[in-house]
Amino acid sequence: MQLNELETPVLVLDRIKMENNIKRLREHLKPFNVLFRPHLKTCKSADVARYMTQSGGPVTVSTLKEAEYFLEHGWNDILYAVGIAANKFAHVANLVDRGAKMTVILDNRETASALAQFCSDRKLSLPVLLEVDTDGHRSGILPDSDALLDVAGFFCRSKDDSGAWLAGVMTHAGDSYNCKDTLSIVALAELERKGAVNAAQRLRAVGFDAPIVSVGSTPTAHFASSLEGVTEVRAGVFVFFDLVMAGLGVCNVTDIALSVLCTVIGHQKEKGWMITDAGWMAMSRDRGTAKQRVDQGYGLVCNLDGVVMNDLVMCEANQEHGIIMHRQDPKKTPMLPVGTQLRLLPNHACSTAAQHESYKVVAGGPEIEAQWARFSGWEGSVHVKN
Amino acid sequence: MQLNELETPVLVLDRIKMENNIKRLREHLKPFNVLFRPHLKTCKSADVARYMTQSGGPVTVSTLKEAEYFLEHGWNDILYAVGIAANKFAHVANLVDRGAKMTVILDNRETASALAQFCSDRKLSLPVLLEVDTDGHRSGILPDSDALLDVAGFFCRSKDDSGAWLAGVMTHAGDSYNCKDTLSIVALAELERKGAVNAAQRLRAVGFDAPIVSVGSTPTAHFASSLEGVTEVRAGVFVFFDLVMAGLGVCNVTDIALSVLCTVIGHQKEKGWMITDAGWMAMSRDRGTAKQRVDQGYGLVCNLDGVVMNDLVMCEANQEHGIIMHRQDPKKTPMLPVGTQLRLLPNHACSTAAQHESYKVVAGGPEIEAQWARFSGWEGSVHVKN
Repeated sequence: MQLNELETPVLVLDRIKMENNIKRLREHLKPFNVLFRPHLKTCKSADVARYMTQSGGPVTVSTLKEAEYFLEHGWNDILYAVGIAANKFAHVANLVDRGAKMTVILDNRETASALAQFCSDRKLSLPVLLEVDTDGHRSGILPDSDALLDVAGFFCRSKDDSGAWLAGVMTHAGDSYNCKDTLSIVALAELERKGAVNAAQRLRAVGFDAPIVSVGSTPTAHFASSLEGVTEVRAGVFVFFDLVMAGLGVCNVTDIALSVLCTVIGHQKEKGWMITDAGWMAMSRDRGTAKQRVDQGYGLVCNLDGVVMNDLVMCEANQEHGIIMHRQDPKKTPMLPVGTQLRLLPNHACSTAAQHESYKVVAGGPEIEAQWARFSGWEGSVHVKN
Repeated sequence: MQLNELETPVLVLDRIKMENNIKRLREHLKPFNVLFRPHLKTCKSADVARYMTQSGGPVTVSTLKEAEYFLEHGWNDILYAVGIAANKFAHVANLVDRGAKMTVILDNRETASALAQFCSDRKLSLPVLLEVDTDGHRSGILPDSDALLDVAGFFCRSKDDSGAWLAGVMTHAGDSYNCKDTLSIVALAELERKGAVNAAQRLRAVGFDAPIVSVGSTPTAHFASSLEGVTEVRAGVFVFFDLVMAGLGVCNVTDIALSVLCTVIGHQKEKGWMITDAGWMAMSRDRGTAKQRVDQGYGLVCNLDGVVMNDLVMCEANQEHGIIMHRQDPKKTPMLPVGTQLRLLPNHACSTAAQHESYKVVAGGPEIEAQWARFSGWEGSVHVKN
């Protein structure tokens, strides 16, 4: 079956580009001798994950549903990289019972105290990483703060002790998405490394084993010039890349493996609009490039073969309608015939992929070689009460 | 089971508010003697649809997957309200074969010609509405234009002829979402009515039956002062309402039936941030209130009982993290304890609901009385080639 035979909108994945993206990061990381722990929140698909990491792990997830799904598909070394909440303790314990080697993160006394108690009550040996804030963009404890040792104090010093034990630190330099050039990403990667290593050393100095120093974001993973003291690196969006990453200079537009196939369903000639059947439901409402040097609207237009039509962007979105226009001058919009199929590159691979149920996989050409399922949401097969 | 026993994030639906919203629109429309054809793109759930309309129809959908699902759940009078593309003809024919009374829309010669040919080849009697542009916001033919009669010319004049026949006109005053006050909505509703009725009269004047005049958007449906000549009204988001509708003055914030339950998972005290486990994946990236008088960020915060905490908004979102802050002054953010559960009112009910797999249904209180499934995506059980 070929792309032009599909009902639209539909999500298309170019396997060749994806494999090149994976290879590029693996090769960049090779000299640093660190564990690579890909973040599977972007793909949410075992078929994609198999290209990123061998069955068994190590992987990173952003929901317990992801943990559950990837455990069922053979990955058991799982870092749940969102600060754990007490209403998820029982679900984590259930995953451990089912064979997962779960690691959780947190950044505060309240959760630390509750989790230590929970693990002690359940006789659950659980590795915990302290989330460290190295760039001010979100969660985490400052590496130099008293709070670091204070929160650590709730946990056992090594995995040989029973209960929740302090396995180390993790940080995510999410502010790298706001960098203006790759030099700033290099600098931020070093900040991320230094902060995490510093935090781990402070913990070790007071007697914790803290063997793990986990860092990562797609930009910093690609531009780190040193990873001294780091034991593992995480990245997610790199597998597909997107317009935000291209805008940052982390990849080229031609590296983007993901696109939404749509059909021109009408014109408003006087306005220079082509109307398509891919709206915000198909692309997501993500406008990540709005703050960048080049605003790509809701997506950059390619022809059916995936060749970028540089001046055409999806400038407006309704639920199931998109409006495509020349980015500077509506008079220059080519009124491609009704029925023409186009491919739209997404601002943000995670949010666009999340709107779809599967990937139609191509290898450069128009032939669909596979369909790979993906999932969304939070509700696992087990919804556990505490 | 009670709300506070749930893992978060999770979508909560207040059935009492929903029923009041439905009742309000039904009562507003009663004096006008029009058919009410609710748009099910917002709820995508048979359990919700049962409150909006009796099994059998009439309903409006935005995807053929919705058509298929609602057909399977007992609704067969279905308007697919996105301009049909040729790659969907076979799917529509398949739905008709399975018992659906499908109506489709279009606004151009190319599709009209192809559809007329398809229906003739397949001996398929199919009602078609011409999409009319009454407010310039998206698709459609201008009611006064020559194109109206030109496109109509491809179709049979009545349902008694075989093949695709011109059943009338439809329009959607989507620009009502950009109105600044309810007076402008009243005016736009009248423009919407006049344009649609005018188009239908022009078609009838040249011999088409064109019995249907279909109008609607949630704002104009609530503020129409006349519906003379209109035969049916559509609305979707009214069933739940949202912050955009409240900002327009179409409803009050307290009418919003939908919220996302989340948990405080950490603090950044110096910044006045509470971090939660509901990010843009749970709320969507919709920032519909950004252009309104009051910007509600990614959502307005309520306590677990659903009582609005007027000064607290979700000001920033990562994939699985939200940041809640006082809307004017971070120093005034109350640092609610880690573990506190909050409910977030969405900017846009359609986009937030689309991120979730089910509604946890409450009736004012904390008790969960039901769980209603919902679906997303485009891929039906049948994916048909042309």
